[in-house]
Amino acid sequence: MNIDMIRAAAERIKGHARRTPILTSPFLDEFAGRRVFVKAECLQHTGSFKFRGGRSAVSALTDNELKTGVIAYSSGNHAQGVALAARDFGAPAVIVMPVDAPVVKIENTKALGAEVVLYDRDTEDRDEIGARIAGERGLTLIKPYDAPQVIAGQGTCGLEIAHDMNALGVTDADVAVCCGGGGLTSGIALALAADAPGLRVRPVEPEGFDDVTRSLISGKIESNERSSGSLCDAIITKQPGDLTFPIMQAHCGPVVVVSEDECLRAVGLAFDRLRVVIEPGGAAALAAALFHSDEFTDDAIIAIATGGNVDAPVFAKALETLS
Amino acid sequence: MNIDMIRAAAERIKGHARRTPILTSPFLDEFAGRRVFVKAECLQHTGSFKFRGGRSAVSALTDNELKTGVIAYSSGNHAQGVALAARDFGAPAVIVMPVDAPVVKIENTKALGAEVVLYDRDTEDRDEIGARIAGERGLTLIKPYDAPQVIAGQGTCGLEIAHDMNALGVTDADVAVCCGGGGLTSGIALALAADAPGLRVRPVEPEGFDDVTRSLISGKIESNERSSGSLCDAIITKQPGDLTFPIMQAHCGPVVVVSEDECLRAVGLAFDRLRVVIEPGGAAALAAALFHSDEFTDDAIIAIATGGNVDAPVFAKALETLS
Repeated sequence: MNIDMIRAAAERIKGHARRTPILTSPFLDEFAGRRVFVKAECLQHTGSFKFRGGRSAVSALTDNELKTGVIAYSSGNHAQGVALAARDFGAPAVIVMPVDAPVVKIENTKALGAEVVLYDRDTEDRDEIGARIAGERGLTLIKPYDAPQVIAGQGTCGLEIAHDMNALGVTDADVAVCCGGGGLTSGIALALAADAPGLRVRPVEPEGFDDVTRSLISGKIESNERSSGSLCDAIITKQPGDLTFPIMQAHCGPVVVVSEDECLRAVGLAFDRLRVVIEPGGAAALAAALFHSDEFTDDAIIAIATGGNVDAPVFAKALETLS
Repeated sequence: MNIDMIRAAAERIKGHARRTPILTSPFLDEFAGRRVFVKAECLQHTGSFKFRGGRSAVSALTDNELKTGVIAYSSGNHAQGVALAARDFGAPAVIVMPVDAPVVKIENTKALGAEVVLYDRDTEDRDEIGARIAGERGLTLIKPYDAPQVIAGQGTCGLEIAHDMNALGVTDADVAVCCGGGGLTSGIALALAADAPGLRVRPVEPEGFDDVTRSLISGKIESNERSSGSLCDAIITKQPGDLTFPIMQAHCGPVVVVSEDECLRAVGLAFDRLRVVIEPGGAAALAAALFHSDEFTDDAIIAIATGGNVDAPVFAKALETLS
């Protein structure tokens, strides 16, 4: 992994992935006691940053690989990102999704033309299922985070942050990133290390799923006990990746851990103050910026709102936190 | 009013107003049976396009006028736009608002440093109240729509649409604009007539408040009977303006009339498919694109999502339309 791969990915996804805006609100600045910039990846195609990595990976395949098709396993956002990218290239796509993923994510993935295979997070192993189907049909596996072209695609988000923050004159800041397997976190970290070294990545995890926190402390990859049962489903993974972990070790930290309730309140405040829809897992970074001020040191925080694929009942719950 | 005033306003607000993105969704395209582009003015500072006009008007004042201060009357979005613009220039601001405006709009206007004076829409005349206070204190009145620099500011939204649609290769399209007094509608119409003559403005009004529809048909300014009592509060005005009406006569129409229920459903679909928060009145144009397909002729519709300042209970009601 290196910065050149990220720049090449940026060229490949240019005009296809959306260049997402950075949003601000004087009310959120006041709340956090510092300037807060929100990179609205929830406005990305398919509703999350995952389209960057999906498009980057699919666009790097050979014609033969595209013809045979791709497979991905995902709690939902990577699924949609790969499904749309595959559809754009006319490639068949099989997506292995947990049966408890938000209904909207499963339905959207199907509507994007993908074949969806459901599995149980607690009793079945998605890697195994993915590998089996890939083997049977000769499909190319697009991993959700631990793959160079996926990390490179997510890193394009970091290039945009570096460019836009430089234009705003912000050279020192904490960059809070909702962190699951570390694809986005490590991609952004590599991009910023090259283009904006004063911006430091702070991964953000939900309580009870703090594998990256513990891994960075112990110096080796640690796992979560549970693999489901959080409102923050989008960023629940077993452990950091073999590729992403060393990058996070080199460039990121310390981690900020937020509660589900804080994420819901951040979803509500983003509705109220930024007029964007963020899913609970995608609001973890904003929750860190708003409710964990004491864990940040810089005058400015850039929080990535990683996704917006949330079912209406969950969003309604977030709205209730405003009253 | 002419295009040069709009271009001059664009220069004055550059770097202050946000250049809002155009959002799309394959699901909405399918729903509407044509390509739908949503200009997300709900992501503008203060949550609506009104900041453009407010900033344009305030930035055109003399130093003495700024020092004495400004006054505006508004159902809420113009209020916030003027309040923020005035604060940016250190100018005192008095805002006359209807007592039944959404709580969030009244609170935000106060939080932006403005002095808020409440009035009753049905029994009091806001023009009269505004004129009286302006006279007593020597304040400059920033009208909500019928003022050249306000129309010029709103027109900057049209310049961006012309530029972005040209970049996308869309040269013929209907441009659906949520229409109250006609400031945004006429500003966009002037900008498009100059820069993208194949894009035609179609004003959109809520049922029961179809003053522009009737005015364009009769050829003279017609009024609404009621001046309150709609979920679409943001675009409820008594009648089109003396300046805006002739511009609309020259460039716009026919009008599309949508129901409150259609607006709520459009708010729900924008949540689900675009991950943006739109207020009911700001969703009228999208409602027209989605539910009145038969009234449009071009292959593409550009719908302006004019604002996103909606209270949580109303938004929760919109979410219920999804189930």
